[in-house]
Amino acid sequence: MYAVLAGGVGASRFLQGLVQVVDPTEVTIISNTADDVEMFGLHVSPDTDIVIYALAGAVNPETGWGLAGDTFAVVDQLQRFGYPRWFNLGDRDLAMAIHRTRLLREGVPMHEIVQELARAWDLEVHMLPMTDTPVRTRILGPEGEIPFQEYMVRMRTGVEVRGVEFEGAEQAQPAPGVLEALAEAKAVIIAPSNPFVSIGPILAVPGIREVLEQTQATRIAISPIIAGEVVKGPAGKMLASLGHDVSAVGVARIYRGLVDVMIIDEQDRALAPEIEALGMRCIVTDTIMSDDGKKAALARVTVEASEGGHA
Amino acid sequence: MYAVLAGGVGASRFLQGLVQVVDPTEVTIISNTADDVEMFGLHVSPDTDIVIYALAGAVNPETGWGLAGDTFAVVDQLQRFGYPRWFNLGDRDLAMAIHRTRLLREGVPMHEIVQELARAWDLEVHMLPMTDTPVRTRILGPEGEIPFQEYMVRMRTGVEVRGVEFEGAEQAQPAPGVLEALAEAKAVIIAPSNPFVSIGPILAVPGIREVLEQTQATRIAISPIIAGEVVKGPAGKMLASLGHDVSAVGVARIYRGLVDVMIIDEQDRALAPEIEALGMRCIVTDTIMSDDGKKAALARVTVEASEGGHA
Repeated sequence: MYAVLAGGVGASRFLQGLVQVVDPTEVTIISNTADDVEMFGLHVSPDTDIVIYALAGAVNPETGWGLAGDTFAVVDQLQRFGYPRWFNLGDRDLAMAIHRTRLLREGVPMHEIVQELARAWDLEVHMLPMTDTPVRTRILGPEGEIPFQEYMVRMRTGVEVRGVEFEGAEQAQPAPGVLEALAEAKAVIIAPSNPFVSIGPILAVPGIREVLEQTQATRIAISPIIAGEVVKGPAGKMLASLGHDVSAVGVARIYRGLVDVMIIDEQDRALAPEIEALGMRCIVTDTIMSDDGKKAALARVTVEASEGGHA
Repeated sequence: MYAVLAGGVGASRFLQGLVQVVDPTEVTIISNTADDVEMFGLHVSPDTDIVIYALAGAVNPETGWGLAGDTFAVVDQLQRFGYPRWFNLGDRDLAMAIHRTRLLREGVPMHEIVQELARAWDLEVHMLPMTDTPVRTRILGPEGEIPFQEYMVRMRTGVEVRGVEFEGAEQAQPAPGVLEALAEAKAVIIAPSNPFVSIGPILAVPGIREVLEQTQATRIAISPIIAGEVVKGPAGKMLASLGHDVSAVGVARIYRGLVDVMIIDEQDRALAPEIEALGMRCIVTDTIMSDDGKKAALARVTVEASEGGHA
């Protein structure tokens, strides 16, 4: 069994590779739900949906999120009622939010909803939200707190990040199955996602970090930072403004004590000794997942690393 | 002031004429909300929306409901999650349902919501729901109760109607402003809507029938039945199966004691004496509203009838 801590676009690309090289029914995805947002009265789970759409082969390949070929009639029309247009939710994407919202209102717990949505898209992987209760990422900017989607979508990350908070995390509990998956997995993989706002909230749910520290699984992280830059998203800017090295070493330091193996890109080969000095194995490979073959190759290296055992 | 008891398609066409011949700010529409339905977890108000779209000049002219040129991406996609496809709600139409649902969940009363929606479509008329509380029409068919939209849309009215019930009507109160509009109007107009399932639920809200019986307004009804047939909808079949004459006389008998003036079509001229024998004036005119000019002409006849005073 493989347990994967997953954010959005980076994680979804890695998972597209993983299901090519292992039996998807042996993969449990633990999805970040801290960037969930209520828009137009509907519950939207961006990271979960990105992963589902990617594994269903339905994701918009140009953006990495949303559905390929989607239309935007509803959000266009919602402007008539005073809603802002910055949250670009497609019509078919919105159908998922409508269904999720209905189930939530009926009291169905989020872990059942996520599994139902994954089934509706014919996925064979197990999908779990990190928690059934609301956790919400807030960015601390120069002028105060900013809800995550506003920072990410409306402000297009164009604000200095002075801190990141996960509202509700302290009271949250891991969703049923999460701790078991981490404890019983052969490998726990931290996908190449933003360490602060994608993996951070998962680790902030009480119990998850502790199980990750104690599991007998091989714990492997893939650096989302390549040659000092991030492939997608604001991780680079966040590392810098929060005082970290914008490098695979900076990421490795954040995961120190939580991972046995760090996978970094060939362009960062020179950083390997510094990462190994932190007490983890360092594997150097091509981590740029620009096509299906490269996604599978990275997944294969990751799976092989898990044969190495716990450090 | 003109108060209009209104159902869906027939009422919306009449109202398109009325706002051509009187100041729209002098028109208060009391809208049937008993065919409201929760679909996909969203609150849909078919009759209210038909009237709003028609007065905004945005209604689909081919169907008489929905928005012209609308698309159906969301309802198509919702089938993936097991929802039936029979309720044909367009994408832009759905935006209205999303906004209404959000406001309802926030506790905004329906009469404020309806007024906000009408404003969002730049209407100058006053729009009110018949009540703020849920009233739901159920059709009693040979095999039991059928929710109204299932009867109307899914079964396409292809079931014998043995009775009509308005669940929740006894506990309902007229929405704020409804009784005042009826009491203070110069004319109360019963639009050419289905007497059972469009006007019936409005009259079933305690207090409305009583005020209509006592108002000093001239009370005018336009027959939805022309030459023994209905222009749109199941009113003809209902009249027959509930034991009424499928004619303007049958409609007049239902409204006996509630209207001073009955307006019938020229094709039914021979029925005028029978209607007058019921104790109401009968005006014969062209009631087929096939274009804007004819809608305005019918409205003009109706407004002129209101000059006649209370019977």
